[in-house]
Amino acid sequence: MALLFSNATILPMTADEARPRTFTGWVGVDGRRVTLVSDSEQAAAAFRRSHATLREIDCRGKLVMPGLINTHCHAGMTLQRSYADDITLMSWLNDYIWPFESRQTPDEVALGMTLGIVEMLLGGVTSFVDMYYDEDRCVEVAERLGIRAVLGCNYFDSNIEEVFPQVERAVSRAAAGSGRVRIAVAPHSPYTVSPENLVRGRELAERLNLGLMTHIAETRDELRIVRERYGRTPVEHLDALGLLGARTIGAHCVHVTDSDIETLAARGVTVSHNPQSNMKISSGVAPVEKLRRAGALVTVATDGTCSNNDLDMWEELRTASFLQKSATGDPTVLPAWEVLRMATANGARAMGYADGELGVLREGALADLIVVDLQKPHLQPIHDVVSNLVYCGKAADVETVVVDGRIVVEERRIEGVDLAELYGRVAAAVRRITSVR
Amino acid sequence: MALLFSNATILPMTADEARPRTFTGWVGVDGRRVTLVSDSEQAAAAFRRSHATLREIDCRGKLVMPGLINTHCHAGMTLQRSYADDITLMSWLNDYIWPFESRQTPDEVALGMTLGIVEMLLGGVTSFVDMYYDEDRCVEVAERLGIRAVLGCNYFDSNIEEVFPQVERAVSRAAAGSGRVRIAVAPHSPYTVSPENLVRGRELAERLNLGLMTHIAETRDELRIVRERYGRTPVEHLDALGLLGARTIGAHCVHVTDSDIETLAARGVTVSHNPQSNMKISSGVAPVEKLRRAGALVTVATDGTCSNNDLDMWEELRTASFLQKSATGDPTVLPAWEVLRMATANGARAMGYADGELGVLREGALADLIVVDLQKPHLQPIHDVVSNLVYCGKAADVETVVVDGRIVVEERRIEGVDLAELYGRVAAAVRRITSVR
Repeated sequence: MALLFSNATILPMTADEARPRTFTGWVGVDGRRVTLVSDSEQAAAAFRRSHATLREIDCRGKLVMPGLINTHCHAGMTLQRSYADDITLMSWLNDYIWPFESRQTPDEVALGMTLGIVEMLLGGVTSFVDMYYDEDRCVEVAERLGIRAVLGCNYFDSNIEEVFPQVERAVSRAAAGSGRVRIAVAPHSPYTVSPENLVRGRELAERLNLGLMTHIAETRDELRIVRERYGRTPVEHLDALGLLGARTIGAHCVHVTDSDIETLAARGVTVSHNPQSNMKISSGVAPVEKLRRAGALVTVATDGTCSNNDLDMWEELRTASFLQKSATGDPTVLPAWEVLRMATANGARAMGYADGELGVLREGALADLIVVDLQKPHLQPIHDVVSNLVYCGKAADVETVVVDGRIVVEERRIEGVDLAELYGRVAAAVRRITSVR
Repeated sequence: MALLFSNATILPMTADEARPRTFTGWVGVDGRRVTLVSDSEQAAAAFRRSHATLREIDCRGKLVMPGLINTHCHAGMTLQRSYADDITLMSWLNDYIWPFESRQTPDEVALGMTLGIVEMLLGGVTSFVDMYYDEDRCVEVAERLGIRAVLGCNYFDSNIEEVFPQVERAVSRAAAGSGRVRIAVAPHSPYTVSPENLVRGRELAERLNLGLMTHIAETRDELRIVRERYGRTPVEHLDALGLLGARTIGAHCVHVTDSDIETLAARGVTVSHNPQSNMKISSGVAPVEKLRRAGALVTVATDGTCSNNDLDMWEELRTASFLQKSATGDPTVLPAWEVLRMATANGARAMGYADGELGVLREGALADLIVVDLQKPHLQPIHDVVSNLVYCGKAADVETVVVDGRIVVEERRIEGVDLAELYGRVAAAVRRITSVR
């Protein structure tokens, strides 16, 4: 059935540097694609005539825009939300996170991912890039809930032999699915994976034609360790091993030199900026403005629920802008429209989609879009709707979510999920995991 | 009619240093006061028996806590939300804010305040401290909408003769009202008001027995100007003029020396920390942790919708914590429960209420409380409900709001306000103001 979103404020976004414009009009979806973006009543009438089965959704007072793209998270960790806060990193890992993870079954990871995806879809995130264990198990979760995803199979030196076969399983499961789920190879970081195993990851990605992702230069400790061990910065080290390219997503990139920034831009690496996580963990401030000026592809992300503690991209949008203005002392950097582009068109590039294919609203693009209700006190008056969205918009303002042409959230209800039942299963799983001694 | 909130997770909060505990139980309200806070089924039964007209609200899966207190904003500026972003301070003021303000009528300021209060109430803010023009006109707005407020009459050297009579009018209007609205004298700042006029403000506050509020050390420019003009820091300057005391609220306090911090703590000044505003305007980072350790009373606030751009205290809670962790490099500072206390019990002190009277849930306190729906994906699972609230809670999770014993928001609908009609009036006012040349 075709969809027609009528009388909407339309924010198409673009992949280029232009400041986005808005207009009132119609967005038509047929199958998996947007086939109409127009301000013409006649074009809307023609769309109606040419689609025998059509659902028309009145969007008066509402805005239609591309769905948000979260380029780094650990959705399978969602059962650990707020499990351990306000403590030091070492206590956090040793006393809480690692013991919890060692007791989680793949089904429980899939349950955590279910909860995380539900949160993201309800908040207008139509695509996410994940990095965790048991991604082969989680292909089915992303398929069932209807979200678009790149699932990165995370490995350390200690579990590489276990994870590599998972990558192959995940690839074949994704290949048998809708095409919305892609798989990536995800060495944890340059300080937790040996050079040999980083290269093995790259080779696996090349052999299976997959993207790569890793944490890069997140903390000062990482910088020190990599320097001591290899005499190089994390970026130099990864580059020397051939891991930096246009199909690599580097999460964080906080502690990077000017030369590292040039390298990241030259190799076409996607920088996934996680502002709230970097702040909460006291990691430092990523030089987003410098990275952008150098031509690097910068995107926005939430990181996992242990270090944020939610998967709310609206908050990351404004935090990205606010943090860069604060750190540089310049209130003009990262304007609202720029950060919105980072979370849409740039995110689509990061996921490996061609320009114009995803993260924009144009005829021919994949139909991943959201309807935002502007009739909220915090979104009124409307002097500049992009400022309102980025500086005031909330996950709860997202009313309807379409992924791949299918409505997955409508009037804030998520298709096919009994939330009370889900919370009950989550609570039971948490009880089981935390009672194991 | 008495109110009984049953089977709730109760987060009472306290005014002292103790980490808050939660328990399951009942909260009873009779008249303006909380008269029951108990985990005893028998006490709940006795409350039911002793109140002939009783409304019982089932709060299973929900949390009851004190309402949030926003200690610094400019609610009358809400018509200027997102009017001018991502530009320099001087262009912002000269080209946008001042021209807009010069064209606003008192009725339009009252309309902006209406929109601002509606936003705050829907987000669980039960009390706010305001600082703007035409506060005498706005007493009625706060009274009508049912919120608790301290309205600070803002003056510069240029308009002091106009504002001082407004203070007297505001005081008599507030005195004729519910008692929920208090008035304060609000010299704009130590760099925009002369020493003589600062002292006149203090004298007026003393004569009328009112609190004082001002912006203090918000920007580097202010620091430089005050130093050049008076040879002192802003804090030293205000202290020398006798403006710093237990009834003074100082907004921002970003650029303060160690000696200033000692002074603020010794005088009992309330520091109103506005983290998102400070970040967005590139003001710097207030030394909140140092201020707290020195014994200063630190609270949390949104600032106005021109510099934030919303009035969402939930976002300020987590930004306060994240920003301090980021700036100090220590992830253990400003834990979730501490920042929640800043926005409740500390805020109540800032407004001039005695400890235990407001900002806490205890028998005898004023009944300003909120019901938060925990059955949301971003609030599940619940390992630590305080972490979930501070790091993941959203304005839209607030379901019911009680101020002074009266339900003003129920199931996210605000009592006595037609939102569509309000947005229509706001749009018309904005059209009028921005079309004046």
